[in-house]
Amino acid sequence: MTSLVVHHLGVSQSERIVWLCEELGLDYRLIVYQRDPVTRLAPEDYKALHPMGIAPVITDGALVLSESGAIVDYVARRYGEGRRVIQPDQPGFADFVFWLHFANGSFVANEMLSLIANGLGVATDHPGRAFIEARSVRALDMVEARLGQVRYFAGEALTLADIMMVFPLTTMRLFIPRDLGGYPHIARYLKQIGERPAYRRAMEKGDPGLPSMMG
Amino acid sequence: MTSLVVHHLGVSQSERIVWLCEELGLDYRLIVYQRDPVTRLAPEDYKALHPMGIAPVITDGALVLSESGAIVDYVARRYGEGRRVIQPDQPGFADFVFWLHFANGSFVANEMLSLIANGLGVATDHPGRAFIEARSVRALDMVEARLGQVRYFAGEALTLADIMMVFPLTTMRLFIPRDLGGYPHIARYLKQIGERPAYRRAMEKGDPGLPSMMG
Repeated sequence: MTSLVVHHLGVSQSERIVWLCEELGLDYRLIVYQRDPVTRLAPEDYKALHPMGIAPVITDGALVLSESGAIVDYVARRYGEGRRVIQPDQPGFADFVFWLHFANGSFVANEMLSLIANGLGVATDHPGRAFIEARSVRALDMVEARLGQVRYFAGEALTLADIMMVFPLTTMRLFIPRDLGGYPHIARYLKQIGERPAYRRAMEKGDPGLPSMMG
Repeated sequence: MTSLVVHHLGVSQSERIVWLCEELGLDYRLIVYQRDPVTRLAPEDYKALHPMGIAPVITDGALVLSESGAIVDYVARRYGEGRRVIQPDQPGFADFVFWLHFANGSFVANEMLSLIANGLGVATDHPGRAFIEARSVRALDMVEARLGQVRYFAGEALTLADIMMVFPLTTMRLFIPRDLGGYPHIARYLKQIGERPAYRRAMEKGDPGLPSMMG
């Protein structure tokens, strides 16, 4: 067994890390933490893992590492011999880095603005909401256009870009409901992801019983 | 001259890309766009560059690439022979990927929540604000602790992690005021960055006349 420990907070971004470890066929240790049933916040022992107190977190010997993008980069390059990574001299490199960083840098970040606007009780007709919503729609339209051209975000094979992009299209919608009915290419893509044995194993290990968000 | 064109929106995250090109000594073309003097939004010709309509954007032949993290990765690996990048087998790799992704994935994203809470007119005593503010303080405390241990974010030399982290510590404070008086290690770090010839050249080319945020 490797020294890699994945600390998975139920129904969170850390599902990406479990999924990646399954795709790479790694021998890792998984520890699952449940959210507080009332507040839906992370439990104290999860928050104590890292100074930021948010999911995901991995530990590897003395190393404690947070931030999805950082962890997938670390795991794929340190333990996956660079599988699921596109190198600078390979086709699709620019697409690979774009979607890898766009997922949390813009897409999740903007959805969080909607979530917080709800949480702060901002009126639904406030013009600031239309600004946030327009940006979400632009993001989804761009995703739909991309998935109309290629099988996976960076081309014909699954990469870290997909590992990053699936969460905001699936589990995040449990927090910020969004109807994807008008996006047939996204629907095709999610069906294809949901059929991957590694994805199914990851969700069964990390969040058994969670309703499928692949449709 | 390379085929790289940096589209810089004044007083924005795209200052990172200008700075990186200067650090790498690249022969690139710089086009500067000014914000609308009243709304402070990007002009229409900037928004038309990329479907998301936000800074930064580079073009390189037929490629149009957005998202800071993606662009710095692309430029350093395609044009910089991997300079300012830490490889997986080198010391500091985990720190490198952490700060590289943390900058926009969590730090800027959380500051945007404060900005939007202001823009949406949320009461200053709303408990949601305290939640957002506590996360910002955790981030700054973590930055301060890190810079008390090392000269640059990933160790003894400047890397893409610094290129990503400086903007939220400097220019972003023009939008979301934050007093860094209680953070002596951050102050030391910013002074050191502000003395780098490449940083000075970048700010002079991209945002001449902008007040220094290095103190």
